[in-house]
Amino acid sequence: MSNSVEGVEKYRAISPAEFFYKYREIAGFSNPVRALYQTVRELYENALDATDAHGILPDVKISIKRVDEIQEYYRVTVEDNGIGLPPDVVPNAFGKVLFSSKYVLKQTRGMYGLGVKMAVLYGQMTTGRPVEVITSKQGFKRIYYFKLRIDVNKNEPVILERGTWRKSRDWHGTIVSITLEGDWARAKPKIMEYLSRSVVVTPYANIIFLTPENEIIYYPRAISILPRPPVEVKPHPFGVDLEMMKQLKELSASDTVKDLLIKNFQSVGESTATEVLNRAGVDPSKPAGSLGEDELLRIVNAIKGFENLRPPSAKAISPLGREIIVTGLSRMFKPEFVEAVTRRPQVYHGHPFIVEAGVAYGGGTPQSEMDKPVILRYANKIPLLYDEGSDVTTFVIKEDINWANYSIAFPAPLVVLVHVCSTKIPFKGVGKESIADVPEIRREIRLALMEVLRRLKIYLVRKAREEEVKRRVVLLAKYIPEIARSLHTIVRGEDGIDQELLKQKLVEIVAKRAGLSLEEVARSVETVEIGT
Amino acid sequence: MSNSVEGVEKYRAISPAEFFYKYREIAGFSNPVRALYQTVRELYENALDATDAHGILPDVKISIKRVDEIQEYYRVTVEDNGIGLPPDVVPNAFGKVLFSSKYVLKQTRGMYGLGVKMAVLYGQMTTGRPVEVITSKQGFKRIYYFKLRIDVNKNEPVILERGTWRKSRDWHGTIVSITLEGDWARAKPKIMEYLSRSVVVTPYANIIFLTPENEIIYYPRAISILPRPPVEVKPHPFGVDLEMMKQLKELSASDTVKDLLIKNFQSVGESTATEVLNRAGVDPSKPAGSLGEDELLRIVNAIKGFENLRPPSAKAISPLGREIIVTGLSRMFKPEFVEAVTRRPQVYHGHPFIVEAGVAYGGGTPQSEMDKPVILRYANKIPLLYDEGSDVTTFVIKEDINWANYSIAFPAPLVVLVHVCSTKIPFKGVGKESIADVPEIRREIRLALMEVLRRLKIYLVRKAREEEVKRRVVLLAKYIPEIARSLHTIVRGEDGIDQELLKQKLVEIVAKRAGLSLEEVARSVETVEIGT
Repeated sequence: MSNSVEGVEKYRAISPAEFFYKYREIAGFSNPVRALYQTVRELYENALDATDAHGILPDVKISIKRVDEIQEYYRVTVEDNGIGLPPDVVPNAFGKVLFSSKYVLKQTRGMYGLGVKMAVLYGQMTTGRPVEVITSKQGFKRIYYFKLRIDVNKNEPVILERGTWRKSRDWHGTIVSITLEGDWARAKPKIMEYLSRSVVVTPYANIIFLTPENEIIYYPRAISILPRPPVEVKPHPFGVDLEMMKQLKELSASDTVKDLLIKNFQSVGESTATEVLNRAGVDPSKPAGSLGEDELLRIVNAIKGFENLRPPSAKAISPLGREIIVTGLSRMFKPEFVEAVTRRPQVYHGHPFIVEAGVAYGGGTPQSEMDKPVILRYANKIPLLYDEGSDVTTFVIKEDINWANYSIAFPAPLVVLVHVCSTKIPFKGVGKESIADVPEIRREIRLALMEVLRRLKIYLVRKAREEEVKRRVVLLAKYIPEIARSLHTIVRGEDGIDQELLKQKLVEIVAKRAGLSLEEVARSVETVEIGT
Repeated sequence: MSNSVEGVEKYRAISPAEFFYKYREIAGFSNPVRALYQTVRELYENALDATDAHGILPDVKISIKRVDEIQEYYRVTVEDNGIGLPPDVVPNAFGKVLFSSKYVLKQTRGMYGLGVKMAVLYGQMTTGRPVEVITSKQGFKRIYYFKLRIDVNKNEPVILERGTWRKSRDWHGTIVSITLEGDWARAKPKIMEYLSRSVVVTPYANIIFLTPENEIIYYPRAISILPRPPVEVKPHPFGVDLEMMKQLKELSASDTVKDLLIKNFQSVGESTATEVLNRAGVDPSKPAGSLGEDELLRIVNAIKGFENLRPPSAKAISPLGREIIVTGLSRMFKPEFVEAVTRRPQVYHGHPFIVEAGVAYGGGTPQSEMDKPVILRYANKIPLLYDEGSDVTTFVIKEDINWANYSIAFPAPLVVLVHVCSTKIPFKGVGKESIADVPEIRREIRLALMEVLRRLKIYLVRKAREEEVKRRVVLLAKYIPEIARSLHTIVRGEDGIDQELLKQKLVEIVAKRAGLSLEEVARSVETVEIGT
């Protein structure tokens, strides 16, 4: 049957800029609310990547200003004291989708080379305003200024204005301004929540936020310790595939295949390389350039089947550490109990990762829902706010933890924090809002949570016991005058023991047994005497 | 402070092919299980797009064969009887990421120009095997053969082999084979579920699936009615932005700005164009090529603020219709009640969309979970299996429907089907597994569900009433002999009425009141007499 349309189709190729312009919702730019939130996020996360990952204590200023009386146009400006950008890369860094310094094996908040360009694109498509960038690197004598837009069809920057001047003081960093159509009223709660969650894990940052209402929100630096910055590493052989081997073959054509393996992978030395190549049936001294596809495939399979490789180096990842999490949770919630744990590095698909977990309980901690604690999710120090329902942390909390085991019944004044850091976070989408259910990561989250929850349980059990003891002491103390009177009747006159002394002795006995101070017990005695 | 690393970063641009190779998990290729599932999906969905969207009743053959004894390499082949591909576009259609015929305003299963290339990429990076394509268009005299791979750095096809021969019979369609590393044992249940859910909404397709175990799974065509194929339309002005206007300006530079609007948008005629341009303060007869950015922006804002535009045309979308949904659900579950509804077209962000909903209840319908029915989600006729927890349909079912209102308490033998079709489905990711929470769509899903649930309620209430009546009849019938006896004593002899006749009369009265047949009531009378 073919009663209908002739099968004529129009084919065309689109640039990555046009692709992401067309499908901007997959990068989180689905409407004026999300776009404003996402723009602040992308600029702010770049600011932190330019500072803490390079050993600089971050000073970040964010401002959002309304710039049109009729239309809801907002100018978002973020300034950092980071390493700055070399002037020759500025145009591509802001005007070419899929251009980045972050396509390396090192933990960064940015990953895709996409976020800030999406903000630039969204700005120019809604308001027509270009992005403006001012930047200077440490040690450079000059400051550089650019005004540019993206040519969507070509995926290339179009420079509209540029300038440079000598520095008067030793400033370094970057200032970026993007003007876009937004919806501040509805984006505000999300942006506020994002920032307050962010400072939980970056208590070493100074953050100033100027809102469109000219409100100033200030998060002062709480500690001056920076987590160890991550260092770029070579890929681990566990993550190898044929495509990677082909690219390495082109780059190292003149090396022997053994040297190719040793130079390009971590954890591979003389003996490992030789053993792998023997198993693959490839001569170790063969020039890499002459390897056939079949040989490359045999090498890949030999590597994947190799048992004795050292796990990936964790130098490339930078966890927060217990102190930062504890400080952050304490500052945010003023809880009666707080604890955190950093697990040891693990691996999935050749990528090292570390899971950290924290709990805050009681005190100012907010009350949770009926079926789970309040969850704070983080990935590479980014707070994740959307899509909680499809995140691996939520799966663990709802399915893998037996909360009754930890003396917890919901609702409870309990906040749980989970931070996953890795050279590659398996986000479910380029909008970076939820982490995929990777078995290795799920297992570590479960173990990290169990570890902090065990300590919380010890606290809760001790607290319950102490309260029980106190309750008994109060009960007992009530009868001390009575008992003292009775005893006094029996022992009257002997050894000059009078009633007051007896009472005193009884208080001492009770205090000793209950592990409380004399004052605490005595207080209950008085109270009851007065009360009776 | 800067005690540390010098801020040197390595910047580079990557091609879209390298981007998606690097971040393949965002397109659903995260591991051998998902990759095998996703490969079958992408090829199968392309096969359907090449047939039903062009008025051809689909005949699709899928086969998966293991092709290596040691490694888990599978060759996936999908053959369709579709419109075929012109030979000159084959290399790009399979070897260039972001090349497609689907970047137009028309409902298709494919959207991103990404899926099949991801499968080709995954195949070549895990097994080194190229993709093979055989194709011929309707009316063409020749068949074309290609063997090719993707150059990841350049994002270009590399043709390894090609051939052509004359057709001996009038075959048209496409056969694609991709060899990749997979995990059949674990992918099998998902692939099976995917296919069985797919045939629910494509009962007009003939599907044959040959598994690696040489099992043949056959879904024969159940009906020969095709849904009306979608037709490409011009964009609706509601979806306009400055970027789009700039591109149109380049393409229509010699037209007047009024003609630009009339020619390039649907729902815009003489008077609308003139009115919009008046409001924007732009002379309608001005040549489009001479428009400044400020004027373009004023036009965009005038269009967005315009109230009287006709809503977008629904010609570009192709719903299933009530009959297909009812047939599909009946065939799958053999329920005691089934109903479906197709809502009228609506709009979000300038895109037309239609929501359809179906319910199956009782009979062979599976029992649901404790808090919600079994949910079958579809988007543009694709079943969605993963990420149910973050899909808008799940939100509606869990938050927006008061199930008690419809006489439903969970668990219940209830399946709910929701189909969203549009020129652009707001998927949350390029893996196409869940739909974003867009208010306009959420509202329509709620209304569609309420409509089918109201009908289910009528059925359930009537069923309950009938059961209640029967229960009462049984109760009443029990006393008929007794009553007959008593009555007979009173009226004995008069008019020759005997006891049997009285019983008969009583049965008639009860049957009439209850709306049942005499036999039904009489049966209860007998039963009870025997029982007593």
